[in-house]
Amino acid sequence: MTGWVQVAGLGPGDDALVTAQVHAALDQATDIIGYIPYVARVTARPGLVLHPSDNRVELDRAHHALDLAGQGRRVVIVSSGDPGVFAMASALFEALETHSGPHPDIQILPGITAMLAASAKVGAPLGHDFCAINLSDNLKPFALIEKRLRHAAQGDFAMGFYNPRSKSRPEGFARVLQILREECAPERIIIFARSVSTPQETIRVVPLADATPEMADMRTVVLVGNSQTRRVGDWVYTPRFAAAP
Amino acid sequence: MTGWVQVAGLGPGDDALVTAQVHAALDQATDIIGYIPYVARVTARPGLVLHPSDNRVELDRAHHALDLAGQGRRVVIVSSGDPGVFAMASALFEALETHSGPHPDIQILPGITAMLAASAKVGAPLGHDFCAINLSDNLKPFALIEKRLRHAAQGDFAMGFYNPRSKSRPEGFARVLQILREECAPERIIIFARSVSTPQETIRVVPLADATPEMADMRTVVLVGNSQTRRVGDWVYTPRFAAAP
Repeated sequence: MTGWVQVAGLGPGDDALVTAQVHAALDQATDIIGYIPYVARVTARPGLVLHPSDNRVELDRAHHALDLAGQGRRVVIVSSGDPGVFAMASALFEALETHSGPHPDIQILPGITAMLAASAKVGAPLGHDFCAINLSDNLKPFALIEKRLRHAAQGDFAMGFYNPRSKSRPEGFARVLQILREECAPERIIIFARSVSTPQETIRVVPLADATPEMADMRTVVLVGNSQTRRVGDWVYTPRFAAAP
Repeated sequence: MTGWVQVAGLGPGDDALVTAQVHAALDQATDIIGYIPYVARVTARPGLVLHPSDNRVELDRAHHALDLAGQGRRVVIVSSGDPGVFAMASALFEALETHSGPHPDIQILPGITAMLAASAKVGAPLGHDFCAINLSDNLKPFALIEKRLRHAAQGDFAMGFYNPRSKSRPEGFARVLQILREECAPERIIIFARSVSTPQETIRVVPLADATPEMADMRTVVLVGNSQTRRVGDWVYTPRFAAAP
């Protein structure tokens, strides 16, 4: 039997946001690898081995998947959202660089990433040019986060922030808001979208002047409009037209 | 009967990349509105009225959808990819601003956007912070495109370009490549992904030094790695780690 590894995006939470391609991969798998809450989203069945693991062991998980595939197993690594956006796909290729033996068949299966699910819920705040920035400084220095934030703001991009705040990094997001206040007007629209598409979903839209660090946590994706982003009724959107800089 | 409008993302082309939520919307619709090739992707059935229209009539389409919903129709506006990424969602809210009468029930249904489908095909080139930029200057001046390109490059973001080149704008993408050459090293990895996930799919990975304007057309999404993006085997990925700027 020829083994393989597929990295599948489960979307933000609602099963209705999972693609048929991902369902097919889960149906064919012999092994599911991933962070505990994502593996918990996969329906158990006879012959399917679940390998839930804790946060921050991405490389271990990737090596485990490659080893199992080398033994002929059909392995799906599950990510929330899209596996290529601050998720397991990069970790798998990182592991592949030091993996001994032939490379198994690999496929990355895209999913609905949190930023775009959140955008859809409130309207179209990312309807013009935008940036996605991971605010966690586990894997990069805060100086790089700050540099990218300032370029994104000065380029008048809308923005989507992943991992804005965690218990181990309570102060970083306060600095992010401070940088935004230096670069953007106080009425700039900020969206805090928590647990999008799950029963726990909460969405809050505030002007930058009213945004506070505790509006975000690990389950929140934060969207920042560009200078033209506005409201119509209960919706938030960014117009398609833009004037000269 | 209460009418509604839903804007649905059909993904990049392969039906296996459509979410169950979008299938459910299409099943419940009385009317489908959209650009001719996207409406052609919807299966006809008795009682379903198809309203295909040509390119560049986004606002007319949006007003048409709002009018039909006001008459109690259940209208799905189909977009390729994700409706919130350079597609019909923003146009709908723009139309809503000048729409007379009560606002109908509206929902935006996310989809797999071309940039992320292309990324998955080649590995994980957008695995770190990235920007999405629409290179069409139909709705914005080229000066703004240039400004955003330089900020994206100077911030060392990976990038995804939509609408890189069309017959009516043959020269713009040559200027974009020239700007990238001024800002990035010649070995920067560029990915030309055409008609991703369709039978016509072609993918080409080249260093910036070898990229030429005619490698892109209207059906191409172009990905640009960041300074750390590299190859492992046949794959392209951006590492999760990053050093100080």
